[in-house]
Amino acid sequence: MGAVKGKRIPRAVREQQMMDAAVRTFGRRGYRAASMDEIAELAGVSKPLVYLYLNSKDELFTACIRREAQALLAAVWSGAEPGLPADRQLWAGLRAFFTHTAENPDGWSVLYRQARTHGEPFATEMSVMRDEIVAFVTGLIGAAAREAHRDPALPDRDVAGLAEALVGAAEALAGWANETPGVSAKEAAATLMNFSWAGLENLMNGRPWQPPSR
Amino acid sequence: MGAVKGKRIPRAVREQQMMDAAVRTFGRRGYRAASMDEIAELAGVSKPLVYLYLNSKDELFTACIRREAQALLAAVWSGAEPGLPADRQLWAGLRAFFTHTAENPDGWSVLYRQARTHGEPFATEMSVMRDEIVAFVTGLIGAAAREAHRDPALPDRDVAGLAEALVGAAEALAGWANETPGVSAKEAAATLMNFSWAGLENLMNGRPWQPPSR
Repeated sequence: MGAVKGKRIPRAVREQQMMDAAVRTFGRRGYRAASMDEIAELAGVSKPLVYLYLNSKDELFTACIRREAQALLAAVWSGAEPGLPADRQLWAGLRAFFTHTAENPDGWSVLYRQARTHGEPFATEMSVMRDEIVAFVTGLIGAAAREAHRDPALPDRDVAGLAEALVGAAEALAGWANETPGVSAKEAAATLMNFSWAGLENLMNGRPWQPPSR
Repeated sequence: MGAVKGKRIPRAVREQQMMDAAVRTFGRRGYRAASMDEIAELAGVSKPLVYLYLNSKDELFTACIRREAQALLAAVWSGAEPGLPADRQLWAGLRAFFTHTAENPDGWSVLYRQARTHGEPFATEMSVMRDEIVAFVTGLIGAAAREAHRDPALPDRDVAGLAEALVGAAEALAGWANETPGVSAKEAAATLMNFSWAGLENLMNGRPWQPPSR
């Protein structure tokens, strides 16, 4: 039991190392192209150990999706600043979202590109997380509308549609920002605020854009 | 050669019937679950004839993606009304888009849910179409910005980001509108105009939303 050879790394730590290597490999090379050999080598462990800990490529991929989804949700929740005016809250949430996706491009690729594009059960894992984000944004827009008190009747259905639009725009922008050199998380968040805030504010204040009459 | 038995349906018509049945089956049951038996039965032909005409399930699915992508692009192009003010053009394009996706929910499901979620080569087929739509929207926003003459320097990169946000929002809303009873194409288009136009107009007029200073 020499000091070096006997140094045991706890299972939880080993698993994290394997998943770090897996997220990087799945995110960069895609789910299909990624091999367990590559992941084991990057993690500095043997391939049988990866199978022993995480069972199969499918289970490893599912574990990666869950971990990255939880990390993204945690980042957005911790960035939220309840009590601020609605635009400040939205700005804080968007900055947290784009900062996290910029700092974890492989994790975002696993969620946005890989998890959605390889069928079940992976797409469902992603959509569970997406539903949580849509619910959060729906709550935020609904609360802001009530706070504005101008249009307390802004129907729940309209609020849900606006939340879908905002989340769809944020997802598309996060992918674009990560692929476009020099776009910072702050710029991406500002682009989306520029795009959406004036319209949301007008709606809350009872000033919707009016379709042209012919 | 009796009149009934000899009635020959041209190959092109047969193919369209098979593809109609395939889009409906892929769109409703998903790529994996859809069977060639089901598609042949719905088209009223034998399974060998489907294979004779369209080779394989993969090729049939690819043909469906191409046809639905072309139909969607054609609908958006024909809805565009060049020469109108930018908000009218955007409104016309969005109405055409949401009208098409509402009238062809199976086709939209093939493009938005199925094509993107079953790996290659299908995801690339979808992204080629998406790139065309993003380029179209980028041109529209860029032209509107130049027309407004207030901020001729609105960088191309910012315009590209806004176009990504708009397309991402439109995609998310189309899926939501089709799944939410009672949401019309006009309402979905108005939701997106409400969401985005005020912000775009402010940007073009040099009045971006300002991040709060701390």
